[in-house]
This record gives sequence, structure tokens and C-alpha cells, in this order.
Amino acid sequence: MCDQEKEALLYRSVREFPDFPAPGVLFRDITPVLKSPEAFTASIDLFEGYVRKNFPQVDAIAGLDSRGFLFGPLLAQRLGIGFVLIRKKGKLPGPTESVSYSLEYGKAEIEIQSDAVDPGQKIVIIDDLLATGGTMKAAIELLQCKNAEILSCLVLIELTSLKGAEKLQPHRVHSLLQYD
Amino acid sequence: MCDQEKEALLYRSVREFPDFPAPGVLFRDITPVLKSPEAFTASIDLFEGYVRKNFPQVDAIAGLDSRGFLFGPLLAQRLGIGFVLIRKKGKLPGPTESVSYSLEYGKAEIEIQSDAVDPGQKIVIIDDLLATGGTMKAAIELLQCKNAEILSCLVLIELTSLKGAEKLQPHRVHSLLQYD
Repeated sequence: MCDQEKEALLYRSVREFPDFPAPGVLFRDITPVLKSPEAFTASIDLFEGYVRKNFPQVDAIAGLDSRGFLFGPLLAQRLGIGFVLIRKKGKLPGPTESVSYSLEYGKAEIEIQSDAVDPGQKIVIIDDLLATGGTMKAAIELLQCKNAEILSCLVLIELTSLKGAEKLQPHRVHSLLQYD
Repeated sequence: MCDQEKEALLYRSVREFPDFPAPGVLFRDITPVLKSPEAFTASIDLFEGYVRKNFPQVDAIAGLDSRGFLFGPLLAQRLGIGFVLIRKKGKLPGPTESVSYSLEYGKAEIEIQSDAVDPGQKIVIIDDLLATGGTMKAAIELLQCKNAEILSCLVLIELTSLKGAEKLQPHRVHSLLQYD
């Protein structure tokens, strides 16, 4: 399969559920991608190809709790590098750093272990989906607190009309699939 | 590395934090396993070897939200089969089945999409850690509701003094690392 065929396979694999998790929201469901070994392989192939071409100097992959955990370890293993967890508050033991960010209603907080990354380490962040970009922006801040260098933010799906990528500038977002 | 060396590497990689998440609990932290590409590879090698030897007929890997997501996709990709998500209540779109189970304080509920597995499919369940076995038992019930066949429950770490494996009988638990 060439890259275009892999992309097409991924578009065919994502399905939609209207009004989830709230009325008016069209949920893009990635579970069929994971259920199909071919589609799952295609997604990791495309992530790996992008990182090898553009950021061969990457030191570690950081994944967001919890759907970033589905893709990040596979990508990290393909690249022969480590995987670092960014989790919701209260899940990681030992000394941590945290950043809070606004949600539509209320606030959320994410954390990283204080020794998860070393100063100057070059990090690619991964999650399943970029919507308004709030969580990804908080993840960038968290890694910058640790003086890590953010190379790129990878997502399987980008909801372009929500303009999350603009909010993350000057950091680059790379998405495999784009929807309005 | 032989299997014994891989096990030893894993034991060296897990670290302990006392009194997390509550006083009196000794937390086994697996983040150094994920951070080291060699240790992470060793864990997946051992899981893969066990499944290939004992359950070559496996159809899919089911992983528990959220640390089962760190290992399950890698194992599924190694075996060339699909990965199915078992999630906390309210996270999966579309028709779902759910099972509730007791925690030390209160109750929790886990879910699977109704079309995640087909009747008769042979499933290996994976999570990071087996303690009292409550969540794993609920996951078994959930898959049995769908008439799936449970081949084995895999975990990186088993806390043997909590006797979770007994609670899951006649289903077999295979753990890479055991602690009292």
C-alpha cells in the first residue's frame, strides 16, 4: 500500500456517531481503526514515515491520556525510542508537574512526572484527535516547563473548523485525517 | 536477551512509591518500562511469546482503560490481530454493553461497544496490573455477555497476596512480574 491508499483505508475505517457525547456533537469513532490490524498498521506507518522524514532527531514520544496511549507506544517502538505519559491529575506517583486548562465547562489538569523528560530532549506529542487544542496546548506547556523541545504534535484526526492548530502556533500539528 | 534476562530487566525497571495513591499503598510504577525502549520491547516480547505458544488461535486483544492501552495495541500488532477497547462508562459511542463492579469505596462501570467482538471470538485480555481482580473480572463478564471466549488474562504485574487470580478462576492469569 502506498501512503495515499493507507490514508484512504483510514478514512474508510473511521465512523460517525451523531449527538455523542452531547447533543449536536458528531463523534468520530476510531475503534474500527484499532480493530483492523491493516488499518492500525497503516496509521502507525504514516506517523512513522512523517517523523522519520521530518524529525529524525526525536528523543521520545509523549502521549496524552488515554487515547494517545493507543498510538504513542507503537510509534515509539517503531522508532526505537521511549514513551512518556501525560496523564490526568492524580494518576502519576512521585514528584510531578501539572498545568491546568479551561474546558467548555470548568477546568481540567494534566500532569507529567518530574523526571519523565530531561532538559533539551526533543519530543513529539501524540493524541488521537485535535479539536479546540486545549489539552494539546497544556501538554506543550507542561513539556516546556521541563525545558524539553517540542518538535511536532501528531494526531490521527484534526477537526479543522475548530482551529486548534492555530492555537498551538508556532508549534506544528500533523494530522493524518482532516474533517471540517 | 533470553526470557530470563528480559524478566530481570523488567524487574529492574519497575520502581516503587510508598503511600500512593493512598496512605499504606505501595505503588508499582511502570513508567520507567515505557521510557526505556529495551524494557518496553522486552515486555511485549514476553507477552507475544506466551500467547503464540499457548493461544495461537487468538482472534483479538482486549485492553482495559487506560494502562491496558499501553500494551494491548503493541501485542495485537505483533500478532497481526485487532485491538478492542474496554472503557470506563460513558466514553464509547454507539450501542454498548456495560457491567458494574464494586470498588473499595463505591462502584465503577466498564463498557464495550456492542459490535466490538463477534460471538465465539477468542479473546486475550490485557492490563498493566492485577490487584484484587475486580476490574478484570468485570471485563471477563462483559466479553462473556458478547459470547466471546476468554483465552487468558495478561498483566505486566500481579500483586499475588491480593489473590486476584483466584477470583478469576477458571480463567487463567499470566503475569510477567509477581510481587507479594
